[in-house]
Amino acid sequence: MIPTTIDATRLLDGLAALGRIGLDADGRRTRLAATDADREGRDHLVARLAAAGLEVAIDRIGNIFGVWASEENAAAAPLLLGSHIDTVVNAGHLDGCYGVLGALEVIETLKAAGTRPARPIAVAAFTGEEGARFAPDMLGSLVFAGGLPLDEALATVATDGARLGDELARIGHAGTLDPGHLRPAAYVELHIEQGPVLEREGFRIGAVETLQGISWQKVTITGQANHAGTTPMSMRRDAGLAAARTAVFLAERANRSNTPTVATVGRMSFAPDVINVVPARATFTVDLRDPDEGRLREEEAALSAHLAGLEAEGFAVTVERLARFEPVVFDAAIVAEIERVARARGLPVRRITSGAGHDAQMVARLCPAAMIFVPSIGGVSHNPREATADADLVAGAEVLLDLVVRLTGIR
Amino acid sequence: MIPTTIDATRLLDGLAALGRIGLDADGRRTRLAATDADREGRDHLVARLAAAGLEVAIDRIGNIFGVWASEENAAAAPLLLGSHIDTVVNAGHLDGCYGVLGALEVIETLKAAGTRPARPIAVAAFTGEEGARFAPDMLGSLVFAGGLPLDEALATVATDGARLGDELARIGHAGTLDPGHLRPAAYVELHIEQGPVLEREGFRIGAVETLQGISWQKVTITGQANHAGTTPMSMRRDAGLAAARTAVFLAERANRSNTPTVATVGRMSFAPDVINVVPARATFTVDLRDPDEGRLREEEAALSAHLAGLEAEGFAVTVERLARFEPVVFDAAIVAEIERVARARGLPVRRITSGAGHDAQMVARLCPAAMIFVPSIGGVSHNPREATADADLVAGAEVLLDLVVRLTGIR
Repeated sequence: MIPTTIDATRLLDGLAALGRIGLDADGRRTRLAATDADREGRDHLVARLAAAGLEVAIDRIGNIFGVWASEENAAAAPLLLGSHIDTVVNAGHLDGCYGVLGALEVIETLKAAGTRPARPIAVAAFTGEEGARFAPDMLGSLVFAGGLPLDEALATVATDGARLGDELARIGHAGTLDPGHLRPAAYVELHIEQGPVLEREGFRIGAVETLQGISWQKVTITGQANHAGTTPMSMRRDAGLAAARTAVFLAERANRSNTPTVATVGRMSFAPDVINVVPARATFTVDLRDPDEGRLREEEAALSAHLAGLEAEGFAVTVERLARFEPVVFDAAIVAEIERVARARGLPVRRITSGAGHDAQMVARLCPAAMIFVPSIGGVSHNPREATADADLVAGAEVLLDLVVRLTGIR
Repeated sequence: MIPTTIDATRLLDGLAALGRIGLDADGRRTRLAATDADREGRDHLVARLAAAGLEVAIDRIGNIFGVWASEENAAAAPLLLGSHIDTVVNAGHLDGCYGVLGALEVIETLKAAGTRPARPIAVAAFTGEEGARFAPDMLGSLVFAGGLPLDEALATVATDGARLGDELARIGHAGTLDPGHLRPAAYVELHIEQGPVLEREGFRIGAVETLQGISWQKVTITGQANHAGTTPMSMRRDAGLAAARTAVFLAERANRSNTPTVATVGRMSFAPDVINVVPARATFTVDLRDPDEGRLREEEAALSAHLAGLEAEGFAVTVERLARFEPVVFDAAIVAEIERVARARGLPVRRITSGAGHDAQMVARLCPAAMIFVPSIGGVSHNPREATADADLVAGAEVLLDLVVRLTGIR
């Protein structure tokens, strides 16, 4: 019998149990990568993987794997599921953990039902996805995918001065396997949306087809400080106003483009920042994202042209590139399969782009990959108020279950 | 003989000599009110007033007067000229000092020529015009004009913790006269423009007909923090963008109004001020100025309506009034006389509004008052680069000379 339901209580209790680890005296949940709290979470996970009868493996960057293989399927490339269990400061209990424990739940369900998948199924918990202690984010999956040399990653120094390699050894999670030892046939990551779209539009499942490209720039506009009373409007070069015009320009473009483009000016400061002085200088950040590389370049070019226009008006403009990632396009066949299995269950599903970064974007370098989203209540994440309805958590795991059945040839 | 020229060398050397007082080790000029450096400047001025044969008087708020009276005109109300000699930090050498030493130069010229004015002529140096140590600015002239009780003014505590009354006593400039002992028939203040208008438009004299009203407000807009990647544009309440829209709105109004209205957003801050978080809150200041009270109210109303529109969009908006002064309209007859005497000398003159505050706006409560402006090179003030061409400094003093001749009935 192919199972069609997971054990909802086991999944939800498991999330709650992992979520109790790393609480401080004020009840704030923080399990930064390779800290003592992370060790507790990791040890808890390893114990659960072992209890489920999976073969536990840890690689040299600390990625944890639980593999369910049999004699008859051991030669086939495994289907990899997973996410991460490290957190930001004062985190919710779902970001990452849902993908790891949801994957474990699916494997336990299939195992208990006596199914015989045509390939091994493995669950991964990647090291340091959040980047809150060690930069960059998605560090463990980046190394796993061969995007960053292991030695370089181990030498990464934390915001608190510690070295990642030392910290992994200290907490007993510096494994012996070379990252990439496991070559997946495909990768699927179950995750909360961390945004408001599914909830607002009444969908219960997101079939994640793309992950936004990101362009981060820091712009400094220099004009001329002037007395706010004695300088007529026509004789000003108001850098603050030029910055405000740029923020409005970007938002108007993103609003009218009828595309998923998002533009955010998140930081802003004026100098001299005095009530009666026309700002001489304004510094602000621009966060542009789009799931299509061509459109992202168009938005960047539009910003450049706008800034060139300010230069023509007499402003000096400098632009510093802070980060740039191309969009990721997930595997079309898996995305279509996610839609099919969700529809077959009567769950409203839509294709969606991921606005946040995920381990799936790194693993997509190695093999076909995709993600399943479930709604985030109020779109909140990275916050103790992060929540998803229990029914949605169960539905997401059951969509993953159906998908795994299809992808591993269980009949 | 009625003199038609002043002693240019005496005026310019006098400005340079006073300007050498209060230089620090780095050559920065700072004579904050009632400091040791201010005492040096005051003592220097008092010595010059005495050397010119004027009767020196100091009132209880430290305003210094040099009076030229004769037996035959002593019963008439005096014509008062003047300004201030305190400075901001790292100041130029003209702001205020030009009005005091220009007035002294005019009196010395008339005295040396043996003219017999129909009324006494006095020069005043008002205490603490800059407000850089003791708030509010124009403190001495405000008390002189009866706008602030003496005891309250003397109890003012400086940014450095000192009490004004104590400091005036300490530096020997707490006089015995009650402020307002001298009731002027009229007041004229000669000053650098501190703005770019005269220079840019090729005028050498400004006949100051109004002094802008000022409206200072602090606006806080609260929206909703959201993930910059996962939140579509249509689902945002971006407080930073709302602030930027407000800055652009104010500037566009001021630009298109074809009036002297000026609008400045000088301070701006976002919270949480993180590159990938849609700002939850933006705080900024609005400095609105106009020489016409009706127009100033219109601009304030337009801002209020704009902010009400933001509230209708779902933002929370709070507005704090930081300062509000009505415009000052100077005496039409004196302004017209300034224009006439400047034209008679062949000096290009225009009527102008003062964008900055001056002692004249306080003394205007007591008697007919007006100001004469000379060009500021590059519009720069409150800065060591503050400068006016020597020829313009001389021209301004000679316009004052002609005006004083007219106003005191010298034939």
